[in-house]
Amino acid sequence: MALTDTEQLAFALNEARVGLAEGGVPIGAALIVDGEVLAVGHNQRVQLGSSIHHGETDCLENAGRLPASVYARATMVTTLSPCDMCTGAILLYKIPRVIVGENSSFFGGEDYLRQRGVEVVVLDDEECKKLMADFIAAQPGLWNEDIGEE
Amino acid sequence: MALTDTEQLAFALNEARVGLAEGGVPIGAALIVDGEVLAVGHNQRVQLGSSIHHGETDCLENAGRLPASVYARATMVTTLSPCDMCTGAILLYKIPRVIVGENSSFFGGEDYLRQRGVEVVVLDDEECKKLMADFIAAQPGLWNEDIGEE
Repeated sequence: MALTDTEQLAFALNEARVGLAEGGVPIGAALIVDGEVLAVGHNQRVQLGSSIHHGETDCLENAGRLPASVYARATMVTTLSPCDMCTGAILLYKIPRVIVGENSSFFGGEDYLRQRGVEVVVLDDEECKKLMADFIAAQPGLWNEDIGEE
Repeated sequence: MALTDTEQLAFALNEARVGLAEGGVPIGAALIVDGEVLAVGHNQRVQLGSSIHHGETDCLENAGRLPASVYARATMVTTLSPCDMCTGAILLYKIPRVIVGENSSFFGGEDYLRQRGVEVVVLDDEECKKLMADFIAAQPGLWNEDIGEE
């Protein structure tokens, strides 16, 4: 039986929690292909001192080198609306579907993804929202750094 | 005396050649801030098995965590027109100026960068063009993988 969108989100949410437990920015992602989790990842700004390992890009990196035919069957699941970089990564690999946990803490490239033909589903998930709200309140400087605002 | 655009491109071109010598995709980048090279990088698809370390993103990763005030004074120099992911990374960090070695081998997000207020200068550099033309002719599968086409 196919995973529901909420079931798929659970893998990304688990990654966000792993990131939080590591002292990092709590944003997670999962790449789902043919109903299975091909890779997961989470923001590594703190853990690796990284400016490019966001949830989605870390997940793509963990997935390794894949042929276009695999990306073409993939769904990118992310706990938070994708920033411009992650939006671009989704477009580069022509991933046709994106599940977004929430977009009230941050509104990224959803409109641009749709313009370019990507299906974007926003779940408005309460757990994702609380995770980000608590994090942003606790570490506003780190959050603003992560989105290029500080 | 300030570096000319062509002098800035030389740092990126050198990185592209390093990548080629490593057996990789020959695309390089440099981040120039206040007239000095803050970081360089090159595509690491082959070397690291990476899907996210393109020239520009590898350069941003090598630059480490930077405050927005530094990105705001930066120029991203790349040997090849930036793909959607690298375009997005430039937008995320609000880098105001991009120098592109050439855009005849590949035309990326230049129009979108300009729409979003980024200054894009294309140098139409013969050495950059030859490097990519030779590489694409020699390894079309690797090149197409890198741009999500195969």
